[in-house]
Amino acid sequence: MRVLALLDGTLADPEAPLMRADDLSVTRGDGIFETILVVARDAREMGPHLDRLERSGALLDIPTPPRAVWERAAQAVIDAWPWETDREMALKLVCSRGVDGGDGTPTGFAMGSPVGPDTLRKRRDGLVAVTLDRGFAPDLKERAPWLLLSAKTLSYAVNMAALREAERRGADEVIFTATDGSVLEGPTSAVVLARGKTLITPPPSTGILPGTTQGALFRAAEKAGWETKVEPFDQAELRTADGVWMTSSVRLVTPVHTLDGTPIKADPELHRELTGLYESLY
Amino acid sequence: MRVLALLDGTLADPEAPLMRADDLSVTRGDGIFETILVVARDAREMGPHLDRLERSGALLDIPTPPRAVWERAAQAVIDAWPWETDREMALKLVCSRGVDGGDGTPTGFAMGSPVGPDTLRKRRDGLVAVTLDRGFAPDLKERAPWLLLSAKTLSYAVNMAALREAERRGADEVIFTATDGSVLEGPTSAVVLARGKTLITPPPSTGILPGTTQGALFRAAEKAGWETKVEPFDQAELRTADGVWMTSSVRLVTPVHTLDGTPIKADPELHRELTGLYESLY
Repeated sequence: MRVLALLDGTLADPEAPLMRADDLSVTRGDGIFETILVVARDAREMGPHLDRLERSGALLDIPTPPRAVWERAAQAVIDAWPWETDREMALKLVCSRGVDGGDGTPTGFAMGSPVGPDTLRKRRDGLVAVTLDRGFAPDLKERAPWLLLSAKTLSYAVNMAALREAERRGADEVIFTATDGSVLEGPTSAVVLARGKTLITPPPSTGILPGTTQGALFRAAEKAGWETKVEPFDQAELRTADGVWMTSSVRLVTPVHTLDGTPIKADPELHRELTGLYESLY
Repeated sequence: MRVLALLDGTLADPEAPLMRADDLSVTRGDGIFETILVVARDAREMGPHLDRLERSGALLDIPTPPRAVWERAAQAVIDAWPWETDREMALKLVCSRGVDGGDGTPTGFAMGSPVGPDTLRKRRDGLVAVTLDRGFAPDLKERAPWLLLSAKTLSYAVNMAALREAERRGADEVIFTATDGSVLEGPTSAVVLARGKTLITPPPSTGILPGTTQGALFRAAEKAGWETKVEPFDQAELRTADGVWMTSSVRLVTPVHTLDGTPIKADPELHRELTGLYESLY
C-alpha cells in the first residue's frame, strides 16, 4: 500500500507508470532523495531533511524545487495516508534531474510507504552487522567533490549490493569503513557509539551523509547531560564501546548486538535510555 | 526523437511514463544497462554487449531476461527507426531490478536515440580531457566485490558529475585515475593509447568496464599486425604516448588532443588508420 503525490501537490496512482524511460533517474540514477518518518501525521525532522535535500541538489547542480513544493506534496501524501490502520509511514521525496535532453526541469514525487515488519523486528531485536570496505580514503571528499561523497543521490546500487553481501554473511546490516580502517556509515544509516556518557559519530568530512536521526539523537542527548562528539574513530572501537547503534529516519535508533560474527556490548537499559531521549523530541 | 520498445517486443510511446515511482531503477539506480551503436540497421558488437549485460546482472544478482528478449526488443526499435533520415542510432538496453517489494521480476526496455551533434563534433574534432581522481586503489575490485566496480549499473550520478566537472574546467571528457596515479577509464568510455605499433588499455582487474569498442578495435588492430596489451599504465604515459583515444559504442574511437590544459600528440594520420581498422569490422 503506497500513496503517491506529484510535485504539483496532486495525488497519483502509485501502481501506474510515472517516470519516462528517458528520465535521468531511470537511466543514470541522476537525482537526489530523502526518506522521512511520519508518525501519526507528524513528519519528523522535516526541516533538516529539506535542508539536506537542498545541499544534495547543490552538490549535483540540480535546481531542486523550492521547499514549499516538497511540503505541499508531503502534505498531500500525509493527508491521504490511512492513519487509522497504519500509525507510521516512510515518506520518500525524490528529485530527478529530469528528462535526458529536456529543458532541465527536475522531475520528482513524494511517496508514502508502510514501515515494513523487517524494520520493526530490527528496531526490537537489534542488528547483526558486518564491516565492509567502502574503498575510499577518509580525506577524499575534500579533494574530489565530483565523487558526490556527501550527497544523497539516487545512485544507490552499491549501497544495495553491500546489504546483499551482509545477507550472504548472515547479517542484517553493513558498517562501511574507510581505507584507514575508520568507521564511516551504513548504506542507509549513520553509526553512533557510546563510551560512558559520551555519544560519538564520524564527521561528515569523511564523505558520509550528516544523519538527521543521529542529529536529533545528539540534540536530545545533549539536553539530558550527555556529551556528544563528531570525530573519527577506528573500527576497533566498535568492539570496546558501551554500545553501537545504527540510526536512520525509519529504523530510528537500532542497536547492533553482533559485529562480524562476534557479540558486542548491547545493554538493553542504555538502549532504552537513548531511544527514550530520541522519542522525547516528538 | 526516440523509439521505445518494451521487453515483450512491442513498441511504446517514448514520451509517455513507463516506470513506476517505486521502481528500483528510479529510487536506487538499481539496475544495469548497455548502449549499442546501430548503423544502417546493423547493431555493432551486439554479442559482446549482451555478454556484458549478463555479467553486470550476475554481479548485481539481477535475473536478467534472456538474450532473446533483448534481441527482440532491440529489433523492434531497429525496425521502427527512421533510417532514411537518421543513419545512426544509439540503442540503450535498460534492466532494472524491478518494483520495490515486488515479486523480483526485472523491468526494462530498449530505447533508440539519435547520435547527437555534440558526439559527431567530438568524433571529428577530438577531445579536450582532464584527469580526475576516482578515489579507488587499483586492486580494490578483487577484495570488495560489493562495490560493483566492473558492473555497468544505472547508478551513474558520479560519472555524470565528473563530466560536469570537466565542463567547468573547459574540457569535454574525463580520464579517471586510481589512487596510485594509474589510468582507469572515462565515465562512459575506455582509454586506449598507442606507443609505436602497440595499443594499450588498462586491465579490467582495476575495476573498469571491459570496453566493447576497445575490444573491437584491438581485434581489428591485431589482424592488421598491431600488438595489443591490456596492462596498467601511469597517467604520465598519456603525455608521452603517440596517441590517446577514448572509445565507446557511440563516440567510436575519439582522439584526445589536449590533456589537463596541455596539448598532447594527436597524429591525424594515425587516427585515420585506427578508425579505418575499427570501421573495417562492419
